[in-house]
Amino acid sequence: MLDLQELLDRLVLENRFWCHQGKTAAYIPELSKQDPALLGISACDIHGRIWNAGDWQKPFTIQSISKVVSFICVLQDNSFDALTSKISVAPSSDGFNSIVNLETKNEHRPLNPMINSGAIAAISLVRGATLEEKFQRIFSMIKIMAHNDDLLVNQAVYLSEKRTGDRNRALAYFMKSTGGIDVEVDELLDVYFRLCSVEAACPDIARMAAVLACDGKSPWTGASLFAIKTARIVKAVMTTCGMYDGSGEFAVDVGMPGKSGVGGGIMAVSPRRLGIAVLGPALDQKGNSLAGWKMLQRLSGELDLQIF
Amino acid sequence: MLDLQELLDRLVLENRFWCHQGKTAAYIPELSKQDPALLGISACDIHGRIWNAGDWQKPFTIQSISKVVSFICVLQDNSFDALTSKISVAPSSDGFNSIVNLETKNEHRPLNPMINSGAIAAISLVRGATLEEKFQRIFSMIKIMAHNDDLLVNQAVYLSEKRTGDRNRALAYFMKSTGGIDVEVDELLDVYFRLCSVEAACPDIARMAAVLACDGKSPWTGASLFAIKTARIVKAVMTTCGMYDGSGEFAVDVGMPGKSGVGGGIMAVSPRRLGIAVLGPALDQKGNSLAGWKMLQRLSGELDLQIF
Amino acid sequence: MLDLQELLDRLVLENRFWCHQGKTAAYIPELSKQDPALLGISACDIHGRIWNAGDWQKPFTIQSISKVVSFICVLQDNSFDALTSKISVAPSSDGFNSIVNLETKNEHRPLNPMINSGAIAAISLVRGATLEEKFQRIFSMIKIMAHNDDLLVNQAVYLSEKRTGDRNRALAYFMKSTGGIDVEVDELLDVYFRLCSVEAACPDIARMAAVLACDGKSPWTGASLFAIKTARIVKAVMTTCGMYDGSGEFAVDVGMPGKSGVGGGIMAVSPRRLGIAVLGPALDQKGNSLAGWKMLQRLSGELDLQIF
Amino acid sequence: MLDLQELLDRLVLENRFWCHQGKTAAYIPELSKQDPALLGISACDIHGRIWNAGDWQKPFTIQSISKVVSFICVLQDNSFDALTSKISVAPSSDGFNSIVNLETKNEHRPLNPMINSGAIAAISLVRGATLEEKFQRIFSMIKIMAHNDDLLVNQAVYLSEKRTGDRNRALAYFMKSTGGIDVEVDELLDVYFRLCSVEAACPDIARMAAVLACDGKSPWTGASLFAIKTARIVKAVMTTCGMYDGSGEFAVDVGMPGKSGVGGGIMAVSPRRLGIAVLGPALDQKGNSLAGWKMLQRLSGELDLQIF
Repeated sequence: MLDLQELLDRLVLENRFWCHQGKTAAYIPELSKQDPALLGISACDIHGRIWNAGDWQKPFTIQSISKVVSFICVLQDNSFDALTSKISVAPSSDGFNSIVNLETKNEHRPLNPMINSGAIAAISLVRGATLEEKFQRIFSMIKIMAHNDDLLVNQAVYLSEKRTGDRNRALAYFMKSTGGIDVEVDELLDVYFRLCSVEAACPDIARMAAVLACDGKSPWTGASLFAIKTARIVKAVMTTCGMYDGSGEFAVDVGMPGKSGVGGGIMAVSPRRLGIAVLGPALDQKGNSLAGWKMLQRLSGELDLQIF
Repeated sequence: MLDLQELLDRLVLENRFWCHQGKTAAYIPELSKQDPALLGISACDIHGRIWNAGDWQKPFTIQSISKVVSFICVLQDNSFDALTSKISVAPSSDGFNSIVNLETKNEHRPLNPMINSGAIAAISLVRGATLEEKFQRIFSMIKIMAHNDDLLVNQAVYLSEKRTGDRNRALAYFMKSTGGIDVEVDELLDVYFRLCSVEAACPDIARMAAVLACDGKSPWTGASLFAIKTARIVKAVMTTCGMYDGSGEFAVDVGMPGKSGVGGGIMAVSPRRLGIAVLGPALDQKGNSLAGWKMLQRLSGELDLQIF
Repeated sequence: MLDLQELLDRLVLENRFWCHQGKTAAYIPELSKQDPALLGISACDIHGRIWNAGDWQKPFTIQSISKVVSFICVLQDNSFDALTSKISVAPSSDGFNSIVNLETKNEHRPLNPMINSGAIAAISLVRGATLEEKFQRIFSMIKIMAHNDDLLVNQAVYLSEKRTGDRNRALAYFMKSTGGIDVEVDELLDVYFRLCSVEAACPDIARMAAVLACDGKSPWTGASLFAIKTARIVKAVMTTCGMYDGSGEFAVDVGMPGKSGVGGGIMAVSPRRLGIAVLGPALDQKGNSLAGWKMLQRLSGELDLQIF
Repeated sequence: MLDLQELLDRLVLENRFWCHQGKTAAYIPELSKQDPALLGISACDIHGRIWNAGDWQKPFTIQSISKVVSFICVLQDNSFDALTSKISVAPSSDGFNSIVNLETKNEHRPLNPMINSGAIAAISLVRGATLEEKFQRIFSMIKIMAHNDDLLVNQAVYLSEKRTGDRNRALAYFMKSTGGIDVEVDELLDVYFRLCSVEAACPDIARMAAVLACDGKSPWTGASLFAIKTARIVKAVMTTCGMYDGSGEFAVDVGMPGKSGVGGGIMAVSPRRLGIAVLGPALDQKGNSLAGWKMLQRLSGELDLQIF
């Protein structure tokens, strides 16, 4: 697949100008310092082979991409019915940190686990006697899926998020007040902030996506990391909810299950074919990497990766 | 594929009890008279071969399934950018006839063309000097896709919808007040009501779905009925928005692009494999056929039709 | 009370510059043609004596000020409990033509009779075998309260409102769909548009206000035009809801029951003392006369008219 | 005024059965233990003379009645314009602890200082180098207005509120995230919970109301406790916002500026005549004392206390 290498190189080249159209996340000071001109991409096939281009070596914090793994763990640790009594799987037409629906809709349940409220609630439902155990369970899954045991939490970003995480505190306390979560909010958010602050590079995210492409099997060992059913649910929910209120457009433009993070990363899955990751810290107004989106749109077109 | 025939027969048998859990649409008097115990299914492969089971011969009005065809026509007749300046492609977390978002979100644009507001706006953008011409264009496409020139508008249902269509009038006048539509509301809704009242049976809908499965090509002649790009967009939007605020759950349960109608029909598409239709007039609370959904969920599992 | 004449003259002089800060109503073409520089005021005491200043002779359409009289009639013609099962008396924090609350709150009832939805519903509940009779009942009450039998509907404004009244049609059809109104929408809105288009000048409105100041008694004959209880309810609802979502601020600034119209008029009542009217077609963002508001604020301060 | 004593006695007698129609506040455990059958009333005239009936000696926590005093202090300590850039004075059609409007309306400002969000924000704007100083300033004003230096915070209720105050934490953190408040949330809410937990009896509240009736002057010494302008603003805002989303109905039924607390108290003001307090812990669905409301409605009718 030399072609793929050429294609990725070309995509980075042709889409770099989009970096100037977006903005780095302003509300987390540490993230706003990122270089908006970065653009990288990695693709990992179902045999674990990997292709990279652009700034693929640049580490970044995975932010909301961690929500995918929290969701995987929570699906493994709960029956689907028990889970949906707490968090539903409905797309939201509001922003990623919206609180309105917790008051007005869906019996106070978060609409889905890909937005902040739902992800926070999801962590609380992961197996673990303590919140530290819950963190370790999800963080381990991240490292296993990324096939990289060296991943670490970026302390500066973590502290920055913790300092400025008042909107997430509002979400968590609201859910606590309605019985949606029943653990200590500060500790729960500490886990949430640490998971958002896990630092990885494009190849790590591409490998994580490849596990989803393989329906939960390791591309390297063939071992089942989680159930097929879990993988399918996760990809379905990524498709309808993964890009926040931009999910509908992403399905049209790119046509793959995807999940973005405000650190500039997007994970995309081509079922049974590829796991893909892009990095581009300049975001559009909905919090998705602008140049990354464009690059995925082109890649999907060239390789016919649309699932529809 | 004798197996498929057996499978469909079995699915009808095993899921009929679900008919008793739902209710026929109450707000359109003529629809409330339907027999809630009906259950039928048809599947059409990409060569145009068809399998049927249960009450597949029973005609029913296609209702919101017509929105898929209006959307196809509007995509053919407008650039995508021009279109999304009028109607976006974002999932809604509100019901199919909700008016709230027209006032509060998205610059007064309907969130997507699969809910009532968006479908009404879409019709107004279809090619045609008059609303009658717009109707004929969409109705023709329905008949061509259904491979059935004998389809008719059910006059009793049409008149019933017209008589009780005040909520749709509210949606249309609201959009007129914000400039979202610029044609005469009464005439526009007349087209909308007639399209909803087109009567078809499961094989017709399955054949329509098969055209989408073939990316716009006729399974019978190979002729292109509409662009591949149109087909992909339509299937993407069906996936994120087709089952109203049940779209997220449908993606998880069934995993195919789908579109339901309050007449009890659901159209589902297995890309490059099958077009599927079910009939089951007993609806769940979100307006989707309850037994039909369950049958599709089972079918998807047995044949691995999930797109994820 | 020579002082009052001097005061009114001075208020017009001192507040005329505010006319340049607002804008005439844009959404009704005929209203946008009004001269924004007009400023007039009239006050009528409880003996029927009247003082005028500025452009007090200039006729204007009363617009939403007619809602006060529709409410008076509907209170006279229904028990309060029967009425509030259809329209409640709760302030709204949304704009005068908002439709959101009809879907999401208050069992689909309009929040109050001072906003468009509630006023439209109110008309339908006024006594009268036909909508024409309902119109005549309310229009008669306007003329009786204004002590002026020569008032007429401004045909140009009426036709302009009718032509551009799509937002009101949306409100009415929505209420029809939920059972909130059960008459023919077109006819009902015709009454609504005609009542909005009644043309009067400041002294007329001041006399109407004086009847409310006298708790329903005619300042000229002493005859009871409507019940004290009706007068009290109307003044209470004017206080909490009369200036749309600016009602809270008006209570603070002016401190009297008031009702504004987008034609630039404001009616204000000083219980047991004065009826007051101002004209100033340049509106603030909430649809209230900007210079009129300022003039009333000053008048209230100078004469200590605050009810609090 | 022997009549008044007789009247109050009679009102308690005649309205006690209403106590059985309501429920004590469930969401604060300590409040749910209150005796729902209690019913008391006190009235204080502008000379400081006081009349009492029923369970007037029973102490209760003043809860949201403290919001009136926080608002008085914040008005004294800030220019009105500076204040309204942070908190507006618009009625809300949502419940007392609603968070929706903080996200969707009014540039993230609380709609008014009589609902939880606005009251929390108000405290942060009161003069004081520390939150403890802010508490002391407001608590002192409560004691001065109540003419009772012995008032104390009920520790059991305070701790109960603190333990279960997650909804208020959500409100405060949301406002912190939008810049609406800039102090430490835990400390700020500690002040809020303590102010809600101040324990008083009907005569205390009646005396506080009497100060407002006297436009800020002490009925006992004639000294000005706060500006007339402050008193007028407070009474205006009580009228439009004081009974939460029941404010419109209270204006119609009772017709006086009022403020209720979920502890079962209501403070009502008859300008230039009386300060009134009722106690009745059985609440209606909007959180207002049911029997207390009825008693005030009767009292207002009998003494013609309506301000309209």
